[in-house]
Amino acid sequence: MAATTARVLDRLAGGLPAPALRTTPASWAGRLRDIAPFCAAGEPLALVTPHTTDEVALVLAVADAERIPVVCQGALTGAAGAANAIDGCILLSFEKMNRILEIDPLEQIAVVQPGTVNATLSAAVAEYGLFYPPDPGSWETSTIGGNVATNAGGMCCVKYGVTSDYVRALEFVVPGGQILRTGRRTIKGVAGYDLTHLLTGSEGTLAAITEITVSLLAERDVALAAVGMFESTRAAAEAVAAIKATGRRPSMLELLDAPSIEIISSFRDVGLPNSGSVLLVRSDRGVHAADDMAVFEAAFRSAGAEEVYAASDPQEAEMLLETRRLLGPAIAAQGSPLSDDVCVPVGALATLVDGVAEIGRRHGVRAICPGHAGDGNLHPAIFYDADNTDRAFSAFEEVMDLGLSLGGTITGEHGVGLLKKSFLRRELSAPMLDLHRNVKAAFDPHGILNPGKVFD
Amino acid sequence: MAATTARVLDRLAGGLPAPALRTTPASWAGRLRDIAPFCAAGEPLALVTPHTTDEVALVLAVADAERIPVVCQGALTGAAGAANAIDGCILLSFEKMNRILEIDPLEQIAVVQPGTVNATLSAAVAEYGLFYPPDPGSWETSTIGGNVATNAGGMCCVKYGVTSDYVRALEFVVPGGQILRTGRRTIKGVAGYDLTHLLTGSEGTLAAITEITVSLLAERDVALAAVGMFESTRAAAEAVAAIKATGRRPSMLELLDAPSIEIISSFRDVGLPNSGSVLLVRSDRGVHAADDMAVFEAAFRSAGAEEVYAASDPQEAEMLLETRRLLGPAIAAQGSPLSDDVCVPVGALATLVDGVAEIGRRHGVRAICPGHAGDGNLHPAIFYDADNTDRAFSAFEEVMDLGLSLGGTITGEHGVGLLKKSFLRRELSAPMLDLHRNVKAAFDPHGILNPGKVFD
Repeated sequence: MAATTARVLDRLAGGLPAPALRTTPASWAGRLRDIAPFCAAGEPLALVTPHTTDEVALVLAVADAERIPVVCQGALTGAAGAANAIDGCILLSFEKMNRILEIDPLEQIAVVQPGTVNATLSAAVAEYGLFYPPDPGSWETSTIGGNVATNAGGMCCVKYGVTSDYVRALEFVVPGGQILRTGRRTIKGVAGYDLTHLLTGSEGTLAAITEITVSLLAERDVALAAVGMFESTRAAAEAVAAIKATGRRPSMLELLDAPSIEIISSFRDVGLPNSGSVLLVRSDRGVHAADDMAVFEAAFRSAGAEEVYAASDPQEAEMLLETRRLLGPAIAAQGSPLSDDVCVPVGALATLVDGVAEIGRRHGVRAICPGHAGDGNLHPAIFYDADNTDRAFSAFEEVMDLGLSLGGTITGEHGVGLLKKSFLRRELSAPMLDLHRNVKAAFDPHGILNPGKVFD
Repeated sequence: MAATTARVLDRLAGGLPAPALRTTPASWAGRLRDIAPFCAAGEPLALVTPHTTDEVALVLAVADAERIPVVCQGALTGAAGAANAIDGCILLSFEKMNRILEIDPLEQIAVVQPGTVNATLSAAVAEYGLFYPPDPGSWETSTIGGNVATNAGGMCCVKYGVTSDYVRALEFVVPGGQILRTGRRTIKGVAGYDLTHLLTGSEGTLAAITEITVSLLAERDVALAAVGMFESTRAAAEAVAAIKATGRRPSMLELLDAPSIEIISSFRDVGLPNSGSVLLVRSDRGVHAADDMAVFEAAFRSAGAEEVYAASDPQEAEMLLETRRLLGPAIAAQGSPLSDDVCVPVGALATLVDGVAEIGRRHGVRAICPGHAGDGNLHPAIFYDADNTDRAFSAFEEVMDLGLSLGGTITGEHGVGLLKKSFLRRELSAPMLDLHRNVKAAFDPHGILNPGKVFD
């Protein structure tokens, strides 16, 4: 083993510039895990920070020949442990491959290296009057490579879809070091298999993605927003259905359940009600936004909203959304949450929210269930501490089972990683997991890419 | 061989109801090929028209054990020969699996069997105020299964995207007969690999698709349309760019180049100009359509339109679009076209159109280049007859090479099938084709599904 290690490091050192290869524990301090709790992280063999695709290819050639695990890392903002280090692995961090290579306003595309931060790309394309929609909560620090690897979502999905809807082409390196391309610069194309979508969301298990071509939209128009307060979750869920039935698509439709409101109110008094649920709805259609909001407010009232408050201008709309954005810091101030990510049919929203509360009560743990109501994608969070870790984890499990029983999925946008690996077997059949293994082997016959993540 | 044949037929007869299995050439008359010219079609062993997924599973179990090729067929409206019979194959026609299983207006999904005709689904969901966008030219007769297998496009893609944007979940059967499911009923979901997109557009080479869950949108609002006439292709292409730059998305943006106009005019006098190019633009945003059209008309004029004619109401808008719809019958009246399907960056549209004309002149064949300009997806057609087949095919080839040299693809929406199999090697690298073979083997280790199509 020591001989292998020395040979691997020699081969890496022979092909990489010195600063791109580090082999001391100090160099990977703070890089061993993402934000998911309860997920193991191992001790790497080396940290590689490549500057070029050729350097990535070298790493994947050496690692494949020597059967060394490789873990690709972005900004470590993932929530499922997919980027956690594995014992004896090469950490392949894309932080130095962070250039925007091209922005083409006519074709409405950008070509970026995987380490490009989402917010950096968003700011750069805004200068051309363009808009890159995917907006995961971590968008100010997370990278496009990480967003692609997890097929990240966000608050604007309800109108604009998820990351995979914006990935047009990828350059990627497979074990062995071959550099390949999938997809194209054109809007349409059906020549060959859609490996672009297959790689998107594959959590570093199929290939190392080294270049990403994304589609862009014309800049959003100014937005308006409104808040509706409802006596019960069921009334709020009916309002979501009523908004769907209008045929108009809000650019955001977020739910705060009663326990979420309580947490926000104890963090900062923003005038939220003491009970019931809150929906925030937004339209970004500029001169048509007021018209949309009138329709959405009517939908709120038809579902029995106790109060509806509409922003009178875009600045006030931003302030209303601040309420939703406070949730993250408010949760953090309360302690450690185990954050779930269940997506259910929209018709099952109320059953999920009420079920999460019941599960929390039964296990004696604090549970909240806010999230992207318009997509049925909620983020139940179970608070835990040293005394109730087991109970919290049992509640977390039951929430996923509830989601599955409602026709939902164990993860709408966070991914499987390590945190939900054991639950994937509840969602996918054994033959389907066999097929996953076959597909993985088609890319990675020796299983060096992120082994032990997502499935075994 | 005769013994194998007898055994296969025995096994099929043992598991299928008698009317679902036919073994006489008369039974597959008219079912040997789709509409692609110059593509071989073999002689089947049997025609199976299953009514259930279990019957499909039986076929794929027997065929895999006995190494018999299986060719899935929809309505045979494909344009690349992907559904053509292979010698000794089982033709697996989904015509009897044509039920709409569910329409759920709240979740905005429909669940259908693969033999459901696109127009039938469209009419059924319209009764719920819903809309299934993908509209390939064949939508009145083609099936959702065939649309999924080819990832069909159409005229509304420029606003609404292609078939794969609407496929939410699939039930499918793999060789050996295992029945699997991928995707989900929910809007979002990232549990496991995105095999839904991988299967979409795989042209019957990976699995037999037996059930499809599609996303629906709220019904479109009424539409307006306008026609712009341009002196040159370049001016028309500039108008396309100008429309892109407005940030507004038309629901249709079609180009008729000068030779296409000539063909339409000789078929029916609809008052088209004698030279130059025509663009048709449409907005289906109801009360906002007039506002969009004013912006689009201004874009036409800014690009030097010689004339712009705007429909004054939705009925007249429909009449304007009739001009575009005449192209199909007008082409058919002119003889046999070899229809290409090149998609290029929008900035390369004029170079492609002018290049097609030049290629036609050089080879002494009639060539036209109309299509979905807003997506850069044009349908160059080369007319051929017994005397000039070779020259026509050479021109067809050169058109694809031109498309590739402009950063485009050999197929935007028709697929590869047999017609473009040899050209796929020009678009994808040899290692990428190796990866395709690995992926195919992950689903179909014995290569029984549509062997010899798309790639070898």
